[in-house]
Amino acid sequence: MKRLVNRQGVWIQPLGCAIVLMGLGAWAEPGQQASDNEQKNITKLLTQQVFCWNREDIDGFMETYWKSDDLTFSSGGKTIRGWQATLDRYKKSYPAGAMGKLHFDGLEIDLLSSQVALVLGNWHLDDQGKKKEGNFSLVFKKIDGDWKIVHDHSSALDKEE
Amino acid sequence: MKRLVNRQGVWIQPLGCAIVLMGLGAWAEPGQQASDNEQKNITKLLTQQVFCWNREDIDGFMETYWKSDDLTFSSGGKTIRGWQATLDRYKKSYPAGAMGKLHFDGLEIDLLSSQVALVLGNWHLDDQGKKKEGNFSLVFKKIDGDWKIVHDHSSALDKEE
Repeated sequence: MKRLVNRQGVWIQPLGCAIVLMGLGAWAEPGQQASDNEQKNITKLLTQQVFCWNREDIDGFMETYWKSDDLTFSSGGKTIRGWQATLDRYKKSYPAGAMGKLHFDGLEIDLLSSQVALVLGNWHLDDQGKKKEGNFSLVFKKIDGDWKIVHDHSSALDKEE
Repeated sequence: MKRLVNRQGVWIQPLGCAIVLMGLGAWAEPGQQASDNEQKNITKLLTQQVFCWNREDIDGFMETYWKSDDLTFSSGGKTIRGWQATLDRYKKSYPAGAMGKLHFDGLEIDLLSSQVALVLGNWHLDDQGKKKEGNFSLVFKKIDGDWKIVHDHSSALDKEE
């Protein structure tokens, strides 16, 4: 008999059990399904960020950051405060024409609560062969229904270490 | 008449109003009171960490970290995984006799939920006049009733930036 597997990996028989399956799914791992969805939502936001960066659309890239004076961005032992100051830093460090091509890998999305997620990952920037890389720790918070980065701590790879 | 101030900054008269005051405090800002207490608990843990470091008690210092293979520690563009690997890194980077004197300042404790806190701050290390400094982002999670650091991203001050 043909069998299907639901998202939680539980084998089921495809015979008039859709409602029962929904019930079972909700009973078995309700949190897991929500968690998977939130992880997808956050991954999508980061994918959009990279897409915007690589079009030199810095305003689009900044959409994922919390538009607040309480946003914090740490790097190189310093912390910048506020969305506008973070935007200004990006524009200064990566002026138009010298933003390079960005990609992220090694994403790990850890839902610490239904409203808070910690995202670790690596960033790679290639500006016409001049390569830089490092990692980041992003704290996402769900604000008015949308996931926003409320804190970013990014480091460049320290070759000496 | 002598007056007292309660935690919310409300002036009260010290005359048989302890129970009323407790009621007022709970009614006025129940979340704020809990938040203040958690901030004090986390501050105490960080104070203990510094105390342990300055006694070269690295095991005591590590008590505040989540004793799990899922602890993550990022620095210099790399991420170390697990409590043991984090301890090993500290021991390698700061061997006994060369741990220096540590202090933290600029602590900002942001309770993102009742179970999750983001702590930003600056670290300063003085090893017989050889000074290093930088900042950190700590993600605390309440695990089995105790606040533990589940992620640490620390950076040394980048003089070039």
